[in-house]
Amino acid sequence: MDAAQEARNREAFRQAVVNTLERRLFYIPSFKIYRGVAGLYDYGPPGCAVKSNVLAFWRQHFVLEENMLEVDCPCVTPEVVLKASGHVDKFTDLMVKDEKTGTCYRADHLLKDFCKERLERDPNITAEKAAELRHVLAVLDDLSAEELGAKIKDYGITAPDTKNPLSAPYPFNLMFQTSIGPSGLSSGYMRPETAQGIFVNFKDLYYYNGNKLPFAAAQIGQAFRNEISPRQGLLRVREFTLAEIEHFVDPEDKSHPKFSEVSNLEFLMFPREDQVSGLSARRIHIGEAVSKGIVNNETLGYFIGRVYLFLTHLGIDKERLRFRQHLANEMAHYAADCWDAEIECSYGWIECVGIADRSAYDLRAHTEKSGVPLVAAEKFLEPREVEKLVIAPVKKELGLAFKGNQKMSMEMKATLESKGEAEFHVCTLEKSCHYKEEHGDNPQGEEEGTSEGFHANQQYEEVAKRIAKSLTAAGISYKIDITGTSIGKRYARTDELGVPLAITVDSTSSVTLRERDSKQQIRVNVEEVASVVKEVTDGFSTWADMLWKYPTHSSSATED
Amino acid sequence: MDAAQEARNREAFRQAVVNTLERRLFYIPSFKIYRGVAGLYDYGPPGCAVKSNVLAFWRQHFVLEENMLEVDCPCVTPEVVLKASGHVDKFTDLMVKDEKTGTCYRADHLLKDFCKERLERDPNITAEKAAELRHVLAVLDDLSAEELGAKIKDYGITAPDTKNPLSAPYPFNLMFQTSIGPSGLSSGYMRPETAQGIFVNFKDLYYYNGNKLPFAAAQIGQAFRNEISPRQGLLRVREFTLAEIEHFVDPEDKSHPKFSEVSNLEFLMFPREDQVSGLSARRIHIGEAVSKGIVNNETLGYFIGRVYLFLTHLGIDKERLRFRQHLANEMAHYAADCWDAEIECSYGWIECVGIADRSAYDLRAHTEKSGVPLVAAEKFLEPREVEKLVIAPVKKELGLAFKGNQKMSMEMKATLESKGEAEFHVCTLEKSCHYKEEHGDNPQGEEEGTSEGFHANQQYEEVAKRIAKSLTAAGISYKIDITGTSIGKRYARTDELGVPLAITVDSTSSVTLRERDSKQQIRVNVEEVASVVKEVTDGFSTWADMLWKYPTHSSSATED
Repeated sequence: MDAAQEARNREAFRQAVVNTLERRLFYIPSFKIYRGVAGLYDYGPPGCAVKSNVLAFWRQHFVLEENMLEVDCPCVTPEVVLKASGHVDKFTDLMVKDEKTGTCYRADHLLKDFCKERLERDPNITAEKAAELRHVLAVLDDLSAEELGAKIKDYGITAPDTKNPLSAPYPFNLMFQTSIGPSGLSSGYMRPETAQGIFVNFKDLYYYNGNKLPFAAAQIGQAFRNEISPRQGLLRVREFTLAEIEHFVDPEDKSHPKFSEVSNLEFLMFPREDQVSGLSARRIHIGEAVSKGIVNNETLGYFIGRVYLFLTHLGIDKERLRFRQHLANEMAHYAADCWDAEIECSYGWIECVGIADRSAYDLRAHTEKSGVPLVAAEKFLEPREVEKLVIAPVKKELGLAFKGNQKMSMEMKATLESKGEAEFHVCTLEKSCHYKEEHGDNPQGEEEGTSEGFHANQQYEEVAKRIAKSLTAAGISYKIDITGTSIGKRYARTDELGVPLAITVDSTSSVTLRERDSKQQIRVNVEEVASVVKEVTDGFSTWADMLWKYPTHSSSATED
Repeated sequence: MDAAQEARNREAFRQAVVNTLERRLFYIPSFKIYRGVAGLYDYGPPGCAVKSNVLAFWRQHFVLEENMLEVDCPCVTPEVVLKASGHVDKFTDLMVKDEKTGTCYRADHLLKDFCKERLERDPNITAEKAAELRHVLAVLDDLSAEELGAKIKDYGITAPDTKNPLSAPYPFNLMFQTSIGPSGLSSGYMRPETAQGIFVNFKDLYYYNGNKLPFAAAQIGQAFRNEISPRQGLLRVREFTLAEIEHFVDPEDKSHPKFSEVSNLEFLMFPREDQVSGLSARRIHIGEAVSKGIVNNETLGYFIGRVYLFLTHLGIDKERLRFRQHLANEMAHYAADCWDAEIECSYGWIECVGIADRSAYDLRAHTEKSGVPLVAAEKFLEPREVEKLVIAPVKKELGLAFKGNQKMSMEMKATLESKGEAEFHVCTLEKSCHYKEEHGDNPQGEEEGTSEGFHANQQYEEVAKRIAKSLTAAGISYKIDITGTSIGKRYARTDELGVPLAITVDSTSSVTLRERDSKQQIRVNVEEVASVVKEVTDGFSTWADMLWKYPTHSSSATED
């Protein structure tokens, strides 16, 4: 089947999909009764349902299971922040204007369309010409304003609608500009990404994490891009929901403790070298990719693996999913290395997730501009960010609307549980020396507490980890506190956070479960404790039920 | 205790709360490292957790339990929409400028502060003067630009920071303005409310609802208001998450089928008359309030009751919650009647929810401006909207951060389940005449199907309602289809929507449960069916498990 025919089939398929989605109100062109606005879409009832499932699963899969710190920042952003991040100067596309009507077009789109059109529709095209046009398409993202302008002249490209001559290409900033406050003097923009809100909060989040690396912060919210000529339906829009994760790691140690959990995954990858040498994507073990240096480090590889699991769980076809490494010329102004998760659809291979090593670009930039040092100070190491950027309700929704639903229903457990992150649970590891005060009545512990204190600590850490795993599995968020401070102080700290239930690990068989409001404590077996916590937090049982069901445990001593 | 002392205590309490919330990152002044922007706040990890709980419970309590149609529209809104809604012309506050520095202030705030200051701090104030100032405070919202300007002159009020003279008051529009598209020619605003996105979609939503009134549509999302001088911490901010519901009713029939479920609730209400005649809020049965005409109609009363249940479930103290009717002068430009849910906090009684009868103001306005008739056409009745507007993560979060958590954990069941709304379930009521085709093998039904057809229908409707109730209780969204069309057509319709499971009520004891992807059907007892659906959609069991557990049911006849 020739390219033209294939294109026509894709177009027909897409039309069928679009018609159903619009008829069923999965989405609606925004402000339709006013003839709409290009690049703005509403989600109707079924679209909202799919979107909220996707976001809930995203929270479960990434934020909850990885114990990430979520933040929620405003969309309105003062100019200084986006000046520092480079967006004011560099977040631009090259634009040309119809010299008579003033209509605007993206310069690269016009050139791209011209080349494709000729290649597909011109039967008499010479092999030489065809090769030239293919080369243009290959280097398109690499062309400067001058080079683009030259090509447009050479090929005699005119305004598609009027055939009028076109202006020379010039950069147009894609951010929606506004003014903050009544004076009209302080300029602002609608954020083009949610990541900057994380970077400017680095210092507080680092502190919240106990001044330790690595840690990850996440944000889901609206992002805004004033596209010159939105097209491809929901794929290039002017406002969309963006889910981003910034993972801050020690640049001297990019290993990832959980890498082994994904290292055996095998999926389609498309390294830079293969693209340049005209090969196509091939199945690679992510573990192998990292060991061979195709993927720079374990942390980057870990997140590539996690994204693969996320997308396939949502119902994306493994055969239509590949991870493509950015070529040097297509990298965003901040990125040091970048892998895109691309999904093949009727528009071809479309980027849905970007996984970029931003080095410390943003933290450095905000440090310089604000004068506030955004560094991991304890070892004077410069933190490194690995960004995972999930454009949530775009391609996935379309996929879901069709084959995805059954898959999603299978995910409902995770989806439902993901809300559990709103519960804060602390899992307190007791120093064995505290042991006697609390449970002098327990000979086994006594022994550990005295003769084998250190050994006991290790045992308790194992128990705590096991409990943490089962809490995560139950969709319940928790915080492990192994600080040396007294248990009373630790209870006080978590009481303030509103943590309703605290588990104190002080033996390998049973633990103390404490309720915040009543300060009452019960003893529960290690194996049971997660399910007890879930029953109470789900409201299936009350704390009173548990007091009746389990032996209460009095230790006023621990409260001070 | 005198007013001044009380004010000082409140201030001290507030400071303690604010310090804890900021130290624990419940919220963070946005862009802090750049010295922040007034009226913009981030939520840190615990704040995000509380917010997502509140929103999830909101979805469960309102959208899911009331079977509302959710939409999700962009924040960027073209001028024409907000011109029609009246926001471009009327969404303003009166502003004065420091004539030397140009600093802007809200005129009414300066006058209010002046009066309060005098009343609290001036020991030598005459009874006459005090009375005058109290009167000013009472009518403050009622004053025109001219009247405000006159008072400011009379009292010699100057710029607080510089003591410079002030300009005359003039209106300042509170919307953030921007420009859509590259031409710079089409003006737009960041939406000041989410309701307009619902109104412009009325026609599609009405169609989606089978061209029937009443129905409700809901939207949760960001709203933007460029406040002149943001203050009171999280209470007056420039960007916030807004949850709105528009309930469209037949103006000739404002009764509500579920009013009896709330009519016995009793809580503090503050009718307009009582405010004018200087009385204070008193306990009233909402049922009595409606029958006596204090609250205009059942639908308005029903939503007041539902909001009361929502807020008290979140942990709001009943004694600090009242419903106050707007005075004629404080009603928004679109409102015909309005009740605010007010919560008493350290700032006094603060509006958290507005329940307004907007008449058909918005639909009429958009009909005129767009030329698209937004009416309930089947009877040429003019629909009426009742708006419920929940400013989600403001006051409630503060409340939750403290006493609310345990309460919230009790709500976790609802919270978790609320995500179930992403599953679409159809509950199909069979005409008894279809009965024989499908289950001729069942004598009991046979009998009903023939000799007592109508009676059977009623019975099946009862069964369907019972099942619907249990589905809602399980947090699973559903759609009842009682159209006369063939079951095959109805299956086709819901298959397209992605509804994974369909229940066909064709007997009073057991029903048919059909899975979308496999088209396989099983027989399940009426009492069991909701839990079976939940098990499968939660992923605790697979459809295959159910096929093995329950008798399969073949009826290819029904598929055409």
